[in-house]
Amino acid sequence: MRDLKTQVDQANEEALRIVLSGRPVLVDVRPAIDVVPGMSRNTILHSAPPIEWRDMCGPHRNGVLGAILWEGLADTPADAEAMIENGDVLIEPCHHHDTVGAGTGITSASTPMLVVENTAHGNRAFSCLSEGGGLELLKWGCYDQKIADHLSWQAEVLGPTLKSAIEAVGGVDVKNIISKAVQMGDECHNRSIAANSLFFREIAVALLDTASDRKTLIDSVTFLTEADQFFLHGIMAAAKSMLNPAAGTEFSTMVTAMARNGVEFGIRVAGLGDTWFTAPANHVEGLFFRSEWGPDDAAPDLGDSSITETIGLGGFIQAAAPSVQSYVGGSMQQAIDNTREMATVCIGANPEFPIPALDFSGAPVGIDIRKVVKTQTAPLIDTAITHRDKGLIGAGQVRTPLACFEQALKAFARQYATS
Amino acid sequence: MRDLKTQVDQANEEALRIVLSGRPVLVDVRPAIDVVPGMSRNTILHSAPPIEWRDMCGPHRNGVLGAILWEGLADTPADAEAMIENGDVLIEPCHHHDTVGAGTGITSASTPMLVVENTAHGNRAFSCLSEGGGLELLKWGCYDQKIADHLSWQAEVLGPTLKSAIEAVGGVDVKNIISKAVQMGDECHNRSIAANSLFFREIAVALLDTASDRKTLIDSVTFLTEADQFFLHGIMAAAKSMLNPAAGTEFSTMVTAMARNGVEFGIRVAGLGDTWFTAPANHVEGLFFRSEWGPDDAAPDLGDSSITETIGLGGFIQAAAPSVQSYVGGSMQQAIDNTREMATVCIGANPEFPIPALDFSGAPVGIDIRKVVKTQTAPLIDTAITHRDKGLIGAGQVRTPLACFEQALKAFARQYATS
Repeated sequence: MRDLKTQVDQANEEALRIVLSGRPVLVDVRPAIDVVPGMSRNTILHSAPPIEWRDMCGPHRNGVLGAILWEGLADTPADAEAMIENGDVLIEPCHHHDTVGAGTGITSASTPMLVVENTAHGNRAFSCLSEGGGLELLKWGCYDQKIADHLSWQAEVLGPTLKSAIEAVGGVDVKNIISKAVQMGDECHNRSIAANSLFFREIAVALLDTASDRKTLIDSVTFLTEADQFFLHGIMAAAKSMLNPAAGTEFSTMVTAMARNGVEFGIRVAGLGDTWFTAPANHVEGLFFRSEWGPDDAAPDLGDSSITETIGLGGFIQAAAPSVQSYVGGSMQQAIDNTREMATVCIGANPEFPIPALDFSGAPVGIDIRKVVKTQTAPLIDTAITHRDKGLIGAGQVRTPLACFEQALKAFARQYATS
Repeated sequence: MRDLKTQVDQANEEALRIVLSGRPVLVDVRPAIDVVPGMSRNTILHSAPPIEWRDMCGPHRNGVLGAILWEGLADTPADAEAMIENGDVLIEPCHHHDTVGAGTGITSASTPMLVVENTAHGNRAFSCLSEGGGLELLKWGCYDQKIADHLSWQAEVLGPTLKSAIEAVGGVDVKNIISKAVQMGDECHNRSIAANSLFFREIAVALLDTASDRKTLIDSVTFLTEADQFFLHGIMAAAKSMLNPAAGTEFSTMVTAMARNGVEFGIRVAGLGDTWFTAPANHVEGLFFRSEWGPDDAAPDLGDSSITETIGLGGFIQAAAPSVQSYVGGSMQQAIDNTREMATVCIGANPEFPIPALDFSGAPVGIDIRKVVKTQTAPLIDTAITHRDKGLIGAGQVRTPLACFEQALKAFARQYATS
């Protein structure tokens, strides 16, 4: 019989092989109620890990209330809050529905979802349409009539328009776009401007054919050409679709999800099923977009977007996107050092995401909780900074807490020591 | 009275200030006959320096014949050649008409031209529309019915469509696009995919409004989204428009043009008027696109596209575009070393083209013939490889000959030693 270490190493190789063999293709845009597993008319999803309503951070609370109003489930915030307290609204993490949401991750029945199919493994994952640029979005816990109108336009006009264009081109190969974008200065988390341009180029001709009318076409193209981070949500859904098939790989210590709810940071591990291992979320270091804002205004780390780091993007490939260093006053050497440091906690490298500045060596990928704990090296995440009440106020980077990796490793030892 | 060295240093600072203060804006697309100074119905332009018909390389000869046929000046290649030998066709370098052409640079009366205005200095420069991708283009000396039809479509359909869109957006700021593209892995000579995407995004909405009909719109968007190097020609015209106002700066040893006609390499120097200083063109080292092709098939270095290096792009900022190293089997360190080496022959740095991999230090810019000769460091040019008859067969990099810099420096000494 093989020793545990050998079993784990082999399981990790297999888990990583599953991730790297994924072929995420953006195949559809549909309302959440039609496609997201377990969705109901009165379900509101939020960025993981799970958290009780009473414990939620400001952006989550405000975002959930906004979504209840937008869905027409309640007429006032007070009514919405009463519904929550009466249990008339179900509040659940995106990750429990094969979904990932940036920032608050607020997703409700009518939210138009990017549907990404991992064609190599036959599973699907989802993320809402990006609302575009701006400091005040539902994504950041904001809600007013203007935001509501924009969400409705996305649901009623942009979503169906994109759906038709994406179907017309036979789906969009997300991994191919990521691979090219990494050659173009995107780390695909805090910066995805190249990915967005490549996506737009890919569907531009189809949009001309499929848009229902001239105003729809002009409004959609205007939105898509101005929203620099639009495709981040496609990349996130692709990441989730690549990681999900590896979840449940027995004996594997590979991380399959990292997510933050503005209070706690949580991870899931391939060999440990659906359990979340959590620790208090850290504060993000970085650049505040206005001089009036500072660290005291910020909510702790928030959002499912760290799914990008979980497949070796974002903070793991800062060396591919030195522009992102501008948020943290770093240097090219620091970016390279950070990527090399992340390689020390990873199982392997991804030849499909080669890093130009490292002579096209593959991005480090597949976080091994053993290595994180042994080296006491906390994974690095590029991310936004959200105000503790609501609104986007900055961007930068944050380390994961180590405690959740330590808990996970203890649980792993308990589960597998006797097997 | 100041000594000559001080006068030259000050003149070079002034010449470089003129270049860096340029604001190139793509303002129009028009047939060459309408906008290019000194153009006539029977003029054919080619990439500089000047060269007699009998001495031209294969791609130039074939390109000139093709243009005569496309313009309807002759019905057969034999008739076209007879016209040339009778002096019924004027063959002149693009550079003598404020124009730059990639590859053969073949430009005739009906060629649709990108019109770039340097709004800071009030001058204009021109470059033909890119024919798009492909190994067989007039740009590479090829001509047949398919190529003729495509050129006619560009002249009759794409040109007017782009003109309307560019006017609708009030012109396109080319320097802004270059600056962003350099952050996205383009060195803006052998690679301008990001610049092209950014350009397309900027005019996409306007195209929807201004295209004359649905087929025009679809054909134009299809072409623009597929032609990865389309905007190189806009960048070239911008470079020419930035350099021209510095030409004639007395006492300046700054290079204002570098161009190759497949036989000779030539430079112009700010303080030496319109004189070309030439030496035999070198062969390009690089990657041949098919195994059947090798160095023996290649024409020597060809095209005006080295105007990009003349403003500090291309081979001067390889550190910004490590992907381009794939043509020459280089490494990131080699790319960085090359950029640092080019800095040793330059007057200054361009803060508007910061290089991410060098912690955003500015691109080296403004070639000083004194430094080239003193250090015996030949400027490095990224470029295509053309077949000695016709056709694109590869891409790579080439050093300029040193002899033309040495001749220019001697001429400079003669002209200014007694002043």
